[in-house]
Amino acid sequence: MEIEIATIGGFEEVGRQMTAVRAGEDVVVFDMGLNLSQVLIHDNVETEQMHSLDLIDMGAIPDDRVMSDLEGDVQAIVPTHGHLDHIGAISKLAHRYNAPVVATPYTIELVKQQVKGENKFSVDNDLVKMDAGGTMSIGPQCELEFVNVSHSVIDAINPVLHTPEGSVVYGLDKRIDHNPVIGDPIDMERFREIGREDNGVLCYIEDCTNAGHKGRTPSESVARTHLKDTLQSIEDYDGGIVATTFSSHIARVKSLVEFAEEIGRKPVLLGRSMEKYSGTAERLDFVEFPGDLGMYGHRKSVDRTFKRIMKEGKEKFLPVVTGHQGEPRAMLTRMARGETPFELDDGDKVIFSARVIPEPTNEGQRYQAERLLKMQGARIYDEIHVSGHLREEGHYQMLDALQPQHVIPGHQDLQGFAPYVDLAESQGYAVGRDLHVTRNGNMITLVE
Amino acid sequence: MEIEIATIGGFEEVGRQMTAVRAGEDVVVFDMGLNLSQVLIHDNVETEQMHSLDLIDMGAIPDDRVMSDLEGDVQAIVPTHGHLDHIGAISKLAHRYNAPVVATPYTIELVKQQVKGENKFSVDNDLVKMDAGGTMSIGPQCELEFVNVSHSVIDAINPVLHTPEGSVVYGLDKRIDHNPVIGDPIDMERFREIGREDNGVLCYIEDCTNAGHKGRTPSESVARTHLKDTLQSIEDYDGGIVATTFSSHIARVKSLVEFAEEIGRKPVLLGRSMEKYSGTAERLDFVEFPGDLGMYGHRKSVDRTFKRIMKEGKEKFLPVVTGHQGEPRAMLTRMARGETPFELDDGDKVIFSARVIPEPTNEGQRYQAERLLKMQGARIYDEIHVSGHLREEGHYQMLDALQPQHVIPGHQDLQGFAPYVDLAESQGYAVGRDLHVTRNGNMITLVE
Amino acid sequence: MEIEIATIGGFEEVGRQMTAVRAGEDVVVFDMGLNLSQVLIHDNVETEQMHSLDLIDMGAIPDDRVMSDLEGDVQAIVPTHGHLDHIGAISKLAHRYNAPVVATPYTIELVKQQVKGENKFSVDNDLVKMDAGGTMSIGPQCELEFVNVSHSVIDAINPVLHTPEGSVVYGLDKRIDHNPVIGDPIDMERFREIGREDNGVLCYIEDCTNAGHKGRTPSESVARTHLKDTLQSIEDYDGGIVATTFSSHIARVKSLVEFAEEIGRKPVLLGRSMEKYSGTAERLDFVEFPGDLGMYGHRKSVDRTFKRIMKEGKEKFLPVVTGHQGEPRAMLTRMARGETPFELDDGDKVIFSARVIPEPTNEGQRYQAERLLKMQGARIYDEIHVSGHLREEGHYQMLDALQPQHVIPGHQDLQGFAPYVDLAESQGYAVGRDLHVTRNGNMITLVE
Amino acid sequence: MEIEIATIGGFEEVGRQMTAVRAGEDVVVFDMGLNLSQVLIHDNVETEQMHSLDLIDMGAIPDDRVMSDLEGDVQAIVPTHGHLDHIGAISKLAHRYNAPVVATPYTIELVKQQVKGENKFSVDNDLVKMDAGGTMSIGPQCELEFVNVSHSVIDAINPVLHTPEGSVVYGLDKRIDHNPVIGDPIDMERFREIGREDNGVLCYIEDCTNAGHKGRTPSESVARTHLKDTLQSIEDYDGGIVATTFSSHIARVKSLVEFAEEIGRKPVLLGRSMEKYSGTAERLDFVEFPGDLGMYGHRKSVDRTFKRIMKEGKEKFLPVVTGHQGEPRAMLTRMARGETPFELDDGDKVIFSARVIPEPTNEGQRYQAERLLKMQGARIYDEIHVSGHLREEGHYQMLDALQPQHVIPGHQDLQGFAPYVDLAESQGYAVGRDLHVTRNGNMITLVE
Repeated sequence: MEIEIATIGGFEEVGRQMTAVRAGEDVVVFDMGLNLSQVLIHDNVETEQMHSLDLIDMGAIPDDRVMSDLEGDVQAIVPTHGHLDHIGAISKLAHRYNAPVVATPYTIELVKQQVKGENKFSVDNDLVKMDAGGTMSIGPQCELEFVNVSHSVIDAINPVLHTPEGSVVYGLDKRIDHNPVIGDPIDMERFREIGREDNGVLCYIEDCTNAGHKGRTPSESVARTHLKDTLQSIEDYDGGIVATTFSSHIARVKSLVEFAEEIGRKPVLLGRSMEKYSGTAERLDFVEFPGDLGMYGHRKSVDRTFKRIMKEGKEKFLPVVTGHQGEPRAMLTRMARGETPFELDDGDKVIFSARVIPEPTNEGQRYQAERLLKMQGARIYDEIHVSGHLREEGHYQMLDALQPQHVIPGHQDLQGFAPYVDLAESQGYAVGRDLHVTRNGNMITLVE
Repeated sequence: MEIEIATIGGFEEVGRQMTAVRAGEDVVVFDMGLNLSQVLIHDNVETEQMHSLDLIDMGAIPDDRVMSDLEGDVQAIVPTHGHLDHIGAISKLAHRYNAPVVATPYTIELVKQQVKGENKFSVDNDLVKMDAGGTMSIGPQCELEFVNVSHSVIDAINPVLHTPEGSVVYGLDKRIDHNPVIGDPIDMERFREIGREDNGVLCYIEDCTNAGHKGRTPSESVARTHLKDTLQSIEDYDGGIVATTFSSHIARVKSLVEFAEEIGRKPVLLGRSMEKYSGTAERLDFVEFPGDLGMYGHRKSVDRTFKRIMKEGKEKFLPVVTGHQGEPRAMLTRMARGETPFELDDGDKVIFSARVIPEPTNEGQRYQAERLLKMQGARIYDEIHVSGHLREEGHYQMLDALQPQHVIPGHQDLQGFAPYVDLAESQGYAVGRDLHVTRNGNMITLVE
Repeated sequence: MEIEIATIGGFEEVGRQMTAVRAGEDVVVFDMGLNLSQVLIHDNVETEQMHSLDLIDMGAIPDDRVMSDLEGDVQAIVPTHGHLDHIGAISKLAHRYNAPVVATPYTIELVKQQVKGENKFSVDNDLVKMDAGGTMSIGPQCELEFVNVSHSVIDAINPVLHTPEGSVVYGLDKRIDHNPVIGDPIDMERFREIGREDNGVLCYIEDCTNAGHKGRTPSESVARTHLKDTLQSIEDYDGGIVATTFSSHIARVKSLVEFAEEIGRKPVLLGRSMEKYSGTAERLDFVEFPGDLGMYGHRKSVDRTFKRIMKEGKEKFLPVVTGHQGEPRAMLTRMARGETPFELDDGDKVIFSARVIPEPTNEGQRYQAERLLKMQGARIYDEIHVSGHLREEGHYQMLDALQPQHVIPGHQDLQGFAPYVDLAESQGYAVGRDLHVTRNGNMITLVE
Repeated sequence: MEIEIATIGGFEEVGRQMTAVRAGEDVVVFDMGLNLSQVLIHDNVETEQMHSLDLIDMGAIPDDRVMSDLEGDVQAIVPTHGHLDHIGAISKLAHRYNAPVVATPYTIELVKQQVKGENKFSVDNDLVKMDAGGTMSIGPQCELEFVNVSHSVIDAINPVLHTPEGSVVYGLDKRIDHNPVIGDPIDMERFREIGREDNGVLCYIEDCTNAGHKGRTPSESVARTHLKDTLQSIEDYDGGIVATTFSSHIARVKSLVEFAEEIGRKPVLLGRSMEKYSGTAERLDFVEFPGDLGMYGHRKSVDRTFKRIMKEGKEKFLPVVTGHQGEPRAMLTRMARGETPFELDDGDKVIFSARVIPEPTNEGQRYQAERLLKMQGARIYDEIHVSGHLREEGHYQMLDALQPQHVIPGHQDLQGFAPYVDLAESQGYAVGRDLHVTRNGNMITLVE
């Protein structure tokens, strides 16, 4: 059976991920993501109104025109998890394919919301939920399987396409975590089985984001211990404490909510995406929050909540808000600018359970947000966080488990591939033979 | 009562700490440390043979000639803990003073060994043990108290000299740790009492090492969780695993020993200072190691152990060795150079439960050690560590607890003082009034 | 005669410089500057309308309320050169003093424009021009002298107040430059004389901006050679070339204009501050530009010029524009956003004859500007620049020339003072004795 | 005609450069270099005694076993210039090929010395001198041409193999310099011609060392202006001045010699490689030094010279010595350790006309050397230097001049290739099509 892989997007950048695998007549598309930074660099761009070709030209969504070179039919569009760089282009591209979107329940729910907000295209592909561990047929001979992984959002999986020639493992966006706080640990046992069974792994497509970092990405339980330690240390403080983290990072939000209660404060989630991601997670029973946990997205209800906090006493609450990157319009930045009813006093604590995404734009914005917070007397705690992406030794362990015949580094530019290529070469792979340094729009033929 | 403070050493560098406090007729000396880096920069210097004046000229030990300006009698020499930068000059300077060395039991034991190794001077000051929480009289009106703190060595305290004018708190080398793995948590309650009682705190001398780092230093329990996570993740590996950490960091060594056993390996401690610090800690009952835990310092017995490991199977052991900074003569560096019977194979793991002390000499040596290890196929895990020194928010909490009348930043050069001064000023102190930016050899009069 | 120095502003930051020297009954004020970054951090602040007390609270202008503690009359307000951090608060503070502003002609002209733009206060102090080398009496016994120095703006001086107790040298903002491109070299001979004559130098107040940089600041002639080399290398290019630099850096603008002509292009200066600084310099005969050199400040005339360039051919022009820091509203940023009639093509060159001021806000903005420029195909040349501030060896030479009795580090925060203090101590000064580590609002008594 | 390129060494590192081009039956080898860092990491390795296979295993010299796959005869071994990473393996590998070494006169002379020092192999290949601009036939249909380029050593060229299929330009190690101080400017005119003539450029192999640096590498004349400025600024100093630079950088040595004389000091060159490279350059008439310029390599004669300098007065001399990277055994490091008769005094100047090669080992050694120098009172001037390698805009200009059909990035690892690949892609090349990301030991078929 012919096996071909089209590396469509996210092979020259982080963002706008998209890869297609053709096995005989059947094609599966993994991810359709958005590169938000290519949108934000321009003033006043509203993607909801834009045509896909314009967004392709901007480098914001994958250039899927290469799909016409793939001689097969798309049977499924499979986003691995609910982050924008993996689902953000579905609303612009999916309608071109007569195929369902297949994903885990939480991801499907986020895709649904994404599609709903779209103004230009009407996207009515079927949305099919499949849990980690589930499988579905792709054409007569292939099978799609979801293997459970850990990432910084819940319900993340690595899809595996089992073909007669061996499996294609699409390994983007995970951490090897044996104590992930929410959900099951990564299913390394299954990966090892896939590595050994039948024809083994024909190809492994890997996320190189942190390949240049030594050692291993710590478990979410390490971040949780760190966070607990931090909050315990300010348990006696009788003023305001505010926390921020990635809105979609439900395990972290859950820890914040729990530790808030442990130190005698009422947690409350504030900001549009806080409400969106946590509300969705709760509705789908991924997390159980206290019955009376407030979540507010609209500015009015947020401000009303802040007024209540100021009235009842800041020392009774722990608002968890958006704005960990200092984004100009996020809640924490508004608080820093004094634009909300929440008044910061000398000694109030602000906890960034996140790290700055290392790019000068973010660094500049975050710096400004912190400067404004400090002008009001706030005390800053930051980098209480672990990454969601494998580091060097995680990559080493994945190669060891899967023993793939071919490896394709992804989710980075060439500079980001470099340390992964070094690792793979040290394990016996060779560039141009079984280690494929590729670019957006390339086609790699594995079996002719 | 006249109160004067002589800032003798460690106010222009990290290393050779020494401060003297005069209260009326009585003087207490805090720390007599060695700046090892001023020794190692020269080839072939053997400090054991050297005269103190030469070591003073080299900047290696405190220039205590300023002591002659202090009109009072030294009643006690009080090292806060057993690190060389706090006790390393006792063998060169203590004999000049007719006063006992007063310290906690573990520290006293290390002082004893230090003095024993001295070849030039005969140091026969009394060595007096006092536990954290203990007190002793200094002259007719003052009292010395030891307050328990957490640091990267066990049995560390902050000494407090209670005078009729208020307390002088010598705050060097601590972390606010509520879960320190070994020993009691830092006694913040006592610090708060001292801040409120009688005349409160007249003066606080503070360790600025990490004052420029945002947030708080995590608890040792965070490093422990991180270490556990790391070792669990390689539990299935059936080859060699080697770990290194600060030899004097008994809590960390204890965690390594415990987790080694949890993953089914026999721990063994190798290298001269590994044997010295851990052996001393065990003898003094600070830590309970497994009955059959091997500790070997002499090269011959180390090599014999390595041979046994090679024979019985590397997968059965977890050697904990010296060499976390890539020091040329330490055990791990010898292993990296293939100078020991322990043979590294492809995939063997080396765990640095330490961070590189940020100075180009160390960075160069560590880089070389890692390069040599990797040439043999070793996989590196590093920075599994937390600092022993307060960061910005720890300093904030200490100022809040003690409410000192005067503050003296220490344990750094001026660049290192700068962020602490910013913090203290934000809390209402003013340089030149109650915030004393000082240098080695200065005298500060607090009460005339 | 009593000599006192009030370090009013710019001793905890770069910006809002202000120092007052009292000699007997007479006071001279050096600089009244603005810290622009404290203004820009807030949205929509218009300083022209604001009251000085509000600007003091914002940390934007010096808090001159300490002046009431100085028992003497202000005889002169002496800005050293025309940068905003030295003259920007004159419009807010000078009217409180019954004293002329005394400065070099170019500086006076910029002060005049500054005062003219003020909407809140009416500032009608006399504006007195005095050239480098000139002197004027201050009270019966003192004399003010201007010594010529080199900086990144023309007509900069170091004022010296000669008193019976020795001279007070106010040494802010200079480079030792023997080939400054415009104007005379720094007058080191005069500094050496001042160091030797009469009572020598009582006190030297020094600009520590670059004290932590090794070596010496290169001469402007080095930047000029570098710039020439750059432009020569693209002499054959037949598309657009655009350059940007500090608008007030007339020597650099002059070099750009000259080299533009050497490579056969017509230079043109675009942007409000380009027009302001270069126009003023030309009117005052500091620089001779080609008779037909266009300078346009208003957006309309700039856009008209761009249209002409597009029509006549980009290869015939070299626009020198504002925007070297990526400032959101500057000309180059507008070009990058495609908001001007100038269209960038693949291969067009953009020359930053400046370096990014190292602060995350600037770095973020500059990064965005470059990204936008590159999206249009522009080729970037940057850091063709030398600093206007002394580095370590320049400071060493100044101390050697002046041999001051007292030294006061300035123009930085404490972190910035640190390397200068190290240097001064290595030359025999001691903190607290003759080396004064000071803060905003302090008073230093030199002669009682 | 079949054209194949074997990328043998230096495609995964900087060092051990080697590339072979087969055109029909004939093969030309470009460079045979040594990766010194792979030797120095081990203690006590003496390469002179070692077998090539052992050096290949160490990664020190190119693994030329791939040459057996090339079906043709080696007609010439062509080192581009005299640096060790380009000629250092000739003594170990050249004797395997029945072909002359063809190089420019200065390079041939250095090869001769290299071969003479070899103890293991007897290398008696013909050594053929050919000047920049010269040509020689390679087989019946091809021609080898040397195009003059600028680099940090004199007499550097880029060899071009003209074949019926177009030219293969081997572009390693150059800077576009129109004012190189010694020798002719880079021959851009000839490169442009080669780009246009006949079949144009079939393939361009490029040095990516500085591809990730923005802008252009400044001309040597910029370093010269900078150096002149530095020396002028200390013209009046009446103590010791010492300078160090790359020994093989004759243009820089020449500038140092000239400026020494301009400030009234007698230059003298000290250290083994100083004598070797400058002596050779003078003998071959590449540089005219003052008739009485002393050059001493042996330790005894160096120390004798230092004694003379101390006796006659340090203020009369300017020693130019080895040791710019802080190498432990170099002359400057010996001076820093007080191991030579030259005594440094407070205020003496040390000029590093070099930059630290950015690698932790060098950084550590250089840091130690500077620390030792400063302990003796020396004042340090550093980074008075420009690189010998093209930056981004130089690469842009070369692609523009040559318009090659194929591009092969070299002289780096993959991380180093990345920015070059970005550039080439922005100019229309595509990885895997005409942009070849290769590794050591690969074969690239350009014409089948």
